[in-house]
Amino acid sequence: MNNRVAIIGVGINKFGELWDKNLMDIAYEAGMYAIWDAGISGADIDGMVIGNMSAGRFTGQEHLGALAVDMAGLGDIPAYSVEAACASGGAAVRQAYMAIKSGEHDLMVVLGCEKMSDVSQSEAMNTISVASDWEWEGTFGGTFPALYAFMARRHMHDYGTTEEHLALPVVKNHANAAHNPFAQFQSPVPLDVVMSSAMLAEPLRVLHSSPVTDGAAGLVVCREDLAKKYTDTPVIIEASDQRSDTLALHDRKSITTMSSVVTSTRCALKQANLELKDIDVLELHDSFSIGEIILTEDVGIAKKGEGGKALEEGITEIGGKFPVNTSGGLKARGHPVGATGVAQIVELVLQLRGDADKRQVDGAEKALAVNIGGTGATSIVHVLGR
Amino acid sequence: MNNRVAIIGVGINKFGELWDKNLMDIAYEAGMYAIWDAGISGADIDGMVIGNMSAGRFTGQEHLGALAVDMAGLGDIPAYSVEAACASGGAAVRQAYMAIKSGEHDLMVVLGCEKMSDVSQSEAMNTISVASDWEWEGTFGGTFPALYAFMARRHMHDYGTTEEHLALPVVKNHANAAHNPFAQFQSPVPLDVVMSSAMLAEPLRVLHSSPVTDGAAGLVVCREDLAKKYTDTPVIIEASDQRSDTLALHDRKSITTMSSVVTSTRCALKQANLELKDIDVLELHDSFSIGEIILTEDVGIAKKGEGGKALEEGITEIGGKFPVNTSGGLKARGHPVGATGVAQIVELVLQLRGDADKRQVDGAEKALAVNIGGTGATSIVHVLGR
Repeated sequence: MNNRVAIIGVGINKFGELWDKNLMDIAYEAGMYAIWDAGISGADIDGMVIGNMSAGRFTGQEHLGALAVDMAGLGDIPAYSVEAACASGGAAVRQAYMAIKSGEHDLMVVLGCEKMSDVSQSEAMNTISVASDWEWEGTFGGTFPALYAFMARRHMHDYGTTEEHLALPVVKNHANAAHNPFAQFQSPVPLDVVMSSAMLAEPLRVLHSSPVTDGAAGLVVCREDLAKKYTDTPVIIEASDQRSDTLALHDRKSITTMSSVVTSTRCALKQANLELKDIDVLELHDSFSIGEIILTEDVGIAKKGEGGKALEEGITEIGGKFPVNTSGGLKARGHPVGATGVAQIVELVLQLRGDADKRQVDGAEKALAVNIGGTGATSIVHVLGR
Repeated sequence: MNNRVAIIGVGINKFGELWDKNLMDIAYEAGMYAIWDAGISGADIDGMVIGNMSAGRFTGQEHLGALAVDMAGLGDIPAYSVEAACASGGAAVRQAYMAIKSGEHDLMVVLGCEKMSDVSQSEAMNTISVASDWEWEGTFGGTFPALYAFMARRHMHDYGTTEEHLALPVVKNHANAAHNPFAQFQSPVPLDVVMSSAMLAEPLRVLHSSPVTDGAAGLVVCREDLAKKYTDTPVIIEASDQRSDTLALHDRKSITTMSSVVTSTRCALKQANLELKDIDVLELHDSFSIGEIILTEDVGIAKKGEGGKALEEGITEIGGKFPVNTSGGLKARGHPVGATGVAQIVELVLQLRGDADKRQVDGAEKALAVNIGGTGATSIVHVLGR
């Protein structure tokens, strides 16, 4: 074990369809909030990592690292983008974690950002789809709603998961987002509205799906020994683990579990010398509501097949044993793909600091985030502690 | 200083317009050559980093990390892409370097890859252009030939650099590539042919420009203490440094120097405890011939303004004091943008091992690579030694 890594600042912009801002506007906003929050100056920063999936297609701009350093007036510090589909944000956090542990960097800014609303909905769908195995899935109409519908249908068949179960993460996450001023949707949605919303890919409805979102989130991370100089409440990255699975869904033994999540969660908890019962609050990647149900099982909150039941019992609500997606999750906070993994960490840092206001989990000390790419071909897990 | 990092295997495919292969075919080929060269098995590999600029636009596939692990049958090891425009390959090398130094990884595969010929030449040009400051350069017709033409014109104005000087890197690099079986163009090109080739953006001609290329290059890197298990001839990454500059050319104090290259070279040499005179062979990013002239000056081989003269005197030829681009460089080996930074390292490893055949620099012990993004908004320098 080398240097431990601390998070000393977080920032996020109000997610939504931000017609009057461009990608760098929102990245700048989130990054500056994080820098102000950390109480550092530009001269303290010695590198930047950006999680972004597809600025080249969404906005016609690559080379975001150099552009962000330039715009922020940060001199000649190194910067680069990391891509792992919807797990690009988590990958950026992990890169900064390794960069600091390696001794090559002392204090870095991590940004996650995506501007998705400047293209048509169908172009946005196509751009996201290239995170699937395009040759074997996307080409044949296997968009993400379709692929997650396969998973949902099989889960219903094997375990008796119901249409009501599919709606429960949505109701919970919207209720949580009502208390998150940075969420895209800050209004509760009743069960019957979710269950009667338009069909997207049977059995998944529009309200089971995360939205198209413009958003950015930022962190300031540094060596633990430096953190004390800036804050009395650093949050420590106690573990970071990443795993892969087959890119195409049809190549897996089972489509009702994400083996990458099972392994990365187990390894991260082991690394942190913790068990799941020690975790007080979680952010789980709910790009579709069936995803949250499957992840509730794969991280070990519920047995396989009983994720829906766990939601029914309120175990994952604020006040439950394992509160999940207090931020509103991808569903209601919004899902700017490259930003999501960083936004999850922002929420958990606020929880561990006791700064989550009306959505605060009392006395939260340990937190866990699962950020996935595609249908689970990439899983990145971080464990945080104070 | 933590763990030192060694390169124990290199692989590259024959660069060119590879109509019968897709992106993953060529990435697989280069990766497998590197794995065979290292004499390792798949089970030894615990992570993968991919340098790629724009697979989303060039080929309609993102999430390359998971796809590559899947295709290569490497189980659940983590993988992700890194983007820093034409410096994406160098950024991938630097990520793996930090990942191993951090203790999070022991032995990784680094790939650089780009499949550029599946889109039209104009779409390829557009895709590359988004590595410039699109809002202030690309939009106004500031493609890379145009931007480099500004640099060339100013260099000619300020220092008396001639049209013949501009042609010299091309002639040298094609002569070198004639001995590189993996180069896209393996035939010498006489000076008069370069000087009479079609005008691209005055004063730059078609033959001053690197081509559109499909290609991939791979490395196996590991902790130095593990390297001994696999090889008697490990090459050590003695330094890695990355710097940024303004993305747009017009924001710089001077457009005849790349300050990011000056600083990253100076810092990398210092890190390696070397001076330029200790370096035996270099790969310098010659996306346009004026780029090689400027870099010849910025790394310190020639004084500012005298890069053309240094080429005239043969200093950077094989047999000269500082051989540059023995591989043929971007001009003649080819420039698959995300692969280039890795391909540079492949060439230098072959040189340091004494495996560069007819283009061998006798007794090469220390080597330096400069991989840049855009017009120098990113510069990544690696120093290698045996």
